[in-house]
Amino acid sequence: MRQAGRYLPEYRAIRERVDFLTLCKTPELAAEVSLQPVERFGVDVCIIFSDILIPVEAMGIPISFGDSGPQLERSVRSRADVDVLRVPDPASTMPFVAETIRLCKRALAGRAALLGFTGAPFTLAAYTIEGGGSKNFASTKSLLYSDPQLCHALLDKLASATAEHAAAQIAAGAQAIQVFDTWAGELEPAAYEEFALPYHTRVIERIRSAGVPAILYVNGCAGVLELMARSSADVLSVDWRITLSEARARIGPSIALQGNVDPAILLSTPVRVAQAAFAALEAAGPAGHVLNLGHGILPDTPVACAQAFVDAPKVATVS
Amino acid sequence: MRQAGRYLPEYRAIRERVDFLTLCKTPELAAEVSLQPVERFGVDVCIIFSDILIPVEAMGIPISFGDSGPQLERSVRSRADVDVLRVPDPASTMPFVAETIRLCKRALAGRAALLGFTGAPFTLAAYTIEGGGSKNFASTKSLLYSDPQLCHALLDKLASATAEHAAAQIAAGAQAIQVFDTWAGELEPAAYEEFALPYHTRVIERIRSAGVPAILYVNGCAGVLELMARSSADVLSVDWRITLSEARARIGPSIALQGNVDPAILLSTPVRVAQAAFAALEAAGPAGHVLNLGHGILPDTPVACAQAFVDAPKVATVS
Repeated sequence: MRQAGRYLPEYRAIRERVDFLTLCKTPELAAEVSLQPVERFGVDVCIIFSDILIPVEAMGIPISFGDSGPQLERSVRSRADVDVLRVPDPASTMPFVAETIRLCKRALAGRAALLGFTGAPFTLAAYTIEGGGSKNFASTKSLLYSDPQLCHALLDKLASATAEHAAAQIAAGAQAIQVFDTWAGELEPAAYEEFALPYHTRVIERIRSAGVPAILYVNGCAGVLELMARSSADVLSVDWRITLSEARARIGPSIALQGNVDPAILLSTPVRVAQAAFAALEAAGPAGHVLNLGHGILPDTPVACAQAFVDAPKVATVS
Repeated sequence: MRQAGRYLPEYRAIRERVDFLTLCKTPELAAEVSLQPVERFGVDVCIIFSDILIPVEAMGIPISFGDSGPQLERSVRSRADVDVLRVPDPASTMPFVAETIRLCKRALAGRAALLGFTGAPFTLAAYTIEGGGSKNFASTKSLLYSDPQLCHALLDKLASATAEHAAAQIAAGAQAIQVFDTWAGELEPAAYEEFALPYHTRVIERIRSAGVPAILYVNGCAGVLELMARSSADVLSVDWRITLSEARARIGPSIALQGNVDPAILLSTPVRVAQAAFAALEAAGPAGHVLNLGHGILPDTPVACAQAFVDAPKVATVS
């Protein structure tokens, strides 16, 4: 999950000077906030600071970020809306992403692995159809069920765009790519299989053919875990609504798991956070586990709780 | 799930004259809107029109309903906030609920079964702690993890209040009670087991000891199905994020299932809706299934799509 965020005072200090989108597009600053959790906590992975909607903007839909989340200048509802979208060349439309990766890589000098990411086609389709975030994805699902062909055309373009976006990050030095199909868990399994799985699989195969591991995240994944396992992802990143032991039992021994502490637990106390981290480590078993949260860290998280989460596995390893 | 709702023109016509809470508290009108889906569609169950927060108001927290959902006059955050809550006597504090049931029963004259409902303790606790609805239940979880004893005291009072609320509905003539632990699926399974399961089990046992079946609903239940099965509910009402065939395989043959079509499918076309109903019937298998949606019907649902959903099982039975 994202490591930089509104909970760190050094991040907030920068955001007082620049807005969210400017920060994404200014490599020196994006690299600085990407590195902040490495400098403060000594985490072993650095995640580049960016946003999953960056490629959507490169496809031709301007985006703004307000207090109520992302806002798209127009939403996709018709075939003409899909036809007008470009499959962007990352080098000319999103050069700041590759540059951020290069700056991070240089500054890290091997201290931590460098992780890039991309939104998955279905999740980006949901944002483009809704024109922003949504509570129940009513517009998205209405279109999926009433005009599946139109949705497949949109998903096809998004798969090409995100696969190229991921490949460009790898070419710039990203050592693994996390694919966020965050909202695919809102679909019934049959719709997940038709509208999410084939498209994120295309992106994941592009990542793996470039020689780096792919991590697939779906929020609310308990009903579609076996389908996630068919994506060819190296790591499945799961949310907290299922235990890691059950997830392991259902997907078998050959795929790694990432997760899955409820980020809301980091709103309690450092001791309680450490307990939750230990419980996740125990439930995950001895091998193939990346300790992480089950979704993004919440803005009001006390820094001491984030610190406790990072330190817990070190304690567990020593003891 | 709720049958009456904003999608029916005859319901909207009444709501133009009275606000939501007045409608809940006026038995003649509440009975009228309860009966509307029976009159229009010929559904085989009539669900009384009310709201899960009615007992919370009876406990001493005034509630209002605006465009952005329910709003509580104050939220529960301290021991004093819990201590001041009453365990209400339903006959004196919520007489309109029993009266609505009696009016429905008389008007139905056996044409359809009559279903009462109550919010479950955890879900009502979440509303009282948040002071309304929530996107991620950050305040609720923060309190659960930092002061579990306080939360248990709150849940204990809510369990007593909702058990009595359910018993009063049965005494008035409800033939089954649905227990809505709508937001318990947002908890990690260990927290569900500690804060949701024991309290809704108390309510369910009270319902069953009064001689009627209990239906337990949890939204996003795929990770906690086995825990739901331990509640002693006669029927588990599941959302669409898991297939009914997988749910059946996991809970065994002895508990009935209810659900689980995605309400957003009713935003498409009558033909597509009928396909979804058939698919649910097929996935549920031959026995122990109540065809239903996986959550409440959405406000913009075309009446023709609701009709198609109600008619589909009749067609399936004939063919």
